[in-house]
Amino acid sequence: MTGAEAAAQRDARDPLAALRGRFVLPPGQIYLAGHSLGALPDVVSERLARAVRDEWGVGGVRSWNAARWIDAPRRLGDRLAALLGARPGEVLVCDSTSVNLFKLLGAALRLRPGRKVLLSEAGAFPTDAYIAACATRWLAPEHELRLVARAGLVDAIDDDVAVALLHHVDYRTGHRLEMQTLNAAARAHGALTLWDVSHSTGVMPMELETWGADLAVGCGYKYLCGGPGAPAFVYVRADLLPGIEQPLEGWLGHAAPFAFEETYRAAPGIERMLCGTPPILSLLAFEAALDVIEAADPTLVRAKSESLGDEFIEGIERECAGLDVSVVSPRDAASRGSQITLRHADGYPVVQALIARGVIGDFRAPDLLRFGLAPHYVSFGDVERAVTALRDVLTKKEHLDPRFQQRSAVT
Amino acid sequence: MTGAEAAAQRDARDPLAALRGRFVLPPGQIYLAGHSLGALPDVVSERLARAVRDEWGVGGVRSWNAARWIDAPRRLGDRLAALLGARPGEVLVCDSTSVNLFKLLGAALRLRPGRKVLLSEAGAFPTDAYIAACATRWLAPEHELRLVARAGLVDAIDDDVAVALLHHVDYRTGHRLEMQTLNAAARAHGALTLWDVSHSTGVMPMELETWGADLAVGCGYKYLCGGPGAPAFVYVRADLLPGIEQPLEGWLGHAAPFAFEETYRAAPGIERMLCGTPPILSLLAFEAALDVIEAADPTLVRAKSESLGDEFIEGIERECAGLDVSVVSPRDAASRGSQITLRHADGYPVVQALIARGVIGDFRAPDLLRFGLAPHYVSFGDVERAVTALRDVLTKKEHLDPRFQQRSAVT
Repeated sequence: MTGAEAAAQRDARDPLAALRGRFVLPPGQIYLAGHSLGALPDVVSERLARAVRDEWGVGGVRSWNAARWIDAPRRLGDRLAALLGARPGEVLVCDSTSVNLFKLLGAALRLRPGRKVLLSEAGAFPTDAYIAACATRWLAPEHELRLVARAGLVDAIDDDVAVALLHHVDYRTGHRLEMQTLNAAARAHGALTLWDVSHSTGVMPMELETWGADLAVGCGYKYLCGGPGAPAFVYVRADLLPGIEQPLEGWLGHAAPFAFEETYRAAPGIERMLCGTPPILSLLAFEAALDVIEAADPTLVRAKSESLGDEFIEGIERECAGLDVSVVSPRDAASRGSQITLRHADGYPVVQALIARGVIGDFRAPDLLRFGLAPHYVSFGDVERAVTALRDVLTKKEHLDPRFQQRSAVT
Repeated sequence: MTGAEAAAQRDARDPLAALRGRFVLPPGQIYLAGHSLGALPDVVSERLARAVRDEWGVGGVRSWNAARWIDAPRRLGDRLAALLGARPGEVLVCDSTSVNLFKLLGAALRLRPGRKVLLSEAGAFPTDAYIAACATRWLAPEHELRLVARAGLVDAIDDDVAVALLHHVDYRTGHRLEMQTLNAAARAHGALTLWDVSHSTGVMPMELETWGADLAVGCGYKYLCGGPGAPAFVYVRADLLPGIEQPLEGWLGHAAPFAFEETYRAAPGIERMLCGTPPILSLLAFEAALDVIEAADPTLVRAKSESLGDEFIEGIERECAGLDVSVVSPRDAASRGSQITLRHADGYPVVQALIARGVIGDFRAPDLLRFGLAPHYVSFGDVERAVTALRDVLTKKEHLDPRFQQRSAVT
């Protein structure tokens, strides 16, 4: 049996195979960039057209009430809560991951006033480190930002740590941290945890409450398929909420936004994490996408994600041996998110050559090739064809073509 | 000649009359809520459909480059610069007005380190006061937030003031401040000005550079018709830019966002005001809207805005005498923005009764009725019919109908 035949058999047995039809995927394209921008769910175009034509065009300003725009951040939050293992009222959708991180870091540092360390990870997604630096420099100048390698995080949590900013799945390698272990360590030392779950939400069962997470932020446009730059989400465990005072108190976080009171009073619930007016069109696209994301059982999603990753790694080891490619992601599926990262010295042009063959992955400096395996729409056949394409690119040295060397703005 | 005939004559002579056809306005509806949410420009639906179908659906993650999503904040900013009397590279579109205000207040306070007063206006739009309070409490706890009545602002600028946060046009009354006067006073005392131009941008010629403004923020969804919750804009005068250090340093404000450097280096230009990934769909809707907004000569827009306001006020005084309505907005057009605000003790149900008649205005507690006169799509006939409708509502006491008493979430 050829690799293609084996992949076809797996696809035939895949309980999620039908979901692929709920996405708009260009014929002949293998889209493995869902870790960066998720594919387009079929319902979005029509929902957005209706939002523009009927809600904005006909309803106008009245649609804040009549079309329930005003409730969108909480409404989406309650739906995400189900995906995150959180309760209704613990999750809100608004702003960007970076802005939400700033809010929660400010709040968290005030919740642990005697402690002077903000612990985070060296080499994690840069915006998180930049915002953590801002939070210490601007909001808590007497605090120290302590950056520690991923492997040393558990041991680095001590009684000085106010909050540990942690990355559930690493954006480069796809390595997954054991959330329970870190949360238990933090709790033992009286520290709070703030998880960035951008690279795990939507591709595995999440149990923020059971796993003991205190706070979290995450991204709407990766595996949740909310659209380019979709608003982000914020999670606050219910018992922490009354004590949350955040540094971006805008009018929509007020207990009575339309009373136009001179003095700020925080909304009693998760709405206190709101700041300004949210981008409704982007929110409604995200909301429509959730119809499709929610259609899959997270346990099946995870099982397929692990299998796709195993097949990808096995395929690389089988087809690309001797072609100077190595697997960066953990071989043990339990330690992975839903992406496979490879290393090749000519990573950038190799990714470009793959794109020219219709295999869409991405590159991260200096030498990483990333392939997102979104189980909602990636098939085993996609993985098999991607591996074959990579083998052919490297064997035929297609990446040496000068047109693949030219860097673009977003790489 | 009846009022309706006179209005028809004015519409026949209106050089902007044809622009009304560029908006999607439901038949029979008089949309006077453009000070809150601007009407839908005709180009938006098609542009957004293309963005979803072709750019997200087909292009996927590659559209950050191929469709120039990555440039959208700056590209829109350069177009707004022309409307603001600013230069390319001084304006950027991103985040909400509230978040942008926080960034600029943080930056401004650091630009005047020896001064301990943040001056702003009592009774201005609440989110600005809330964010100003956050900026002092979180970013500069040794600073004082000094709130002064609008009429006393000029005299309140002294040598202790680091930055004066000022509102070009008041959201309740439509009163317009003389920007040059305030800027001159600030300059004389070495203070910076930060203008909220949400209620003036798009309805009058703006000359931020000539008028001597230092910093500004504004809203995309009012007279700019960028759509519900459209991203906001930020203006920094070019010579201040190199010294701007803002408290929300996210990855897209980095000099080389895709180098994923561990340490933040601010972009040399206005891009340093970016934080996280912007909501692209909302940005692209806003960009399309600018095609229509830019089609009008701002001098003609202003002339029509003044005439519409004059007609509205004269109509109210003529038709609604003795009906317990008073005009709150300045009678002198030169002191107004582009809205007319009325006062009536039963303001809320009166607005609801008007909406039932197809006249869409809005209400602000405790007793204000606001009518936005967006010259791009509001006609003299609209004004005449709105005045007549108000007279009829009050004469027939339609607002006493119990169904108009029920408050909704957004009022």
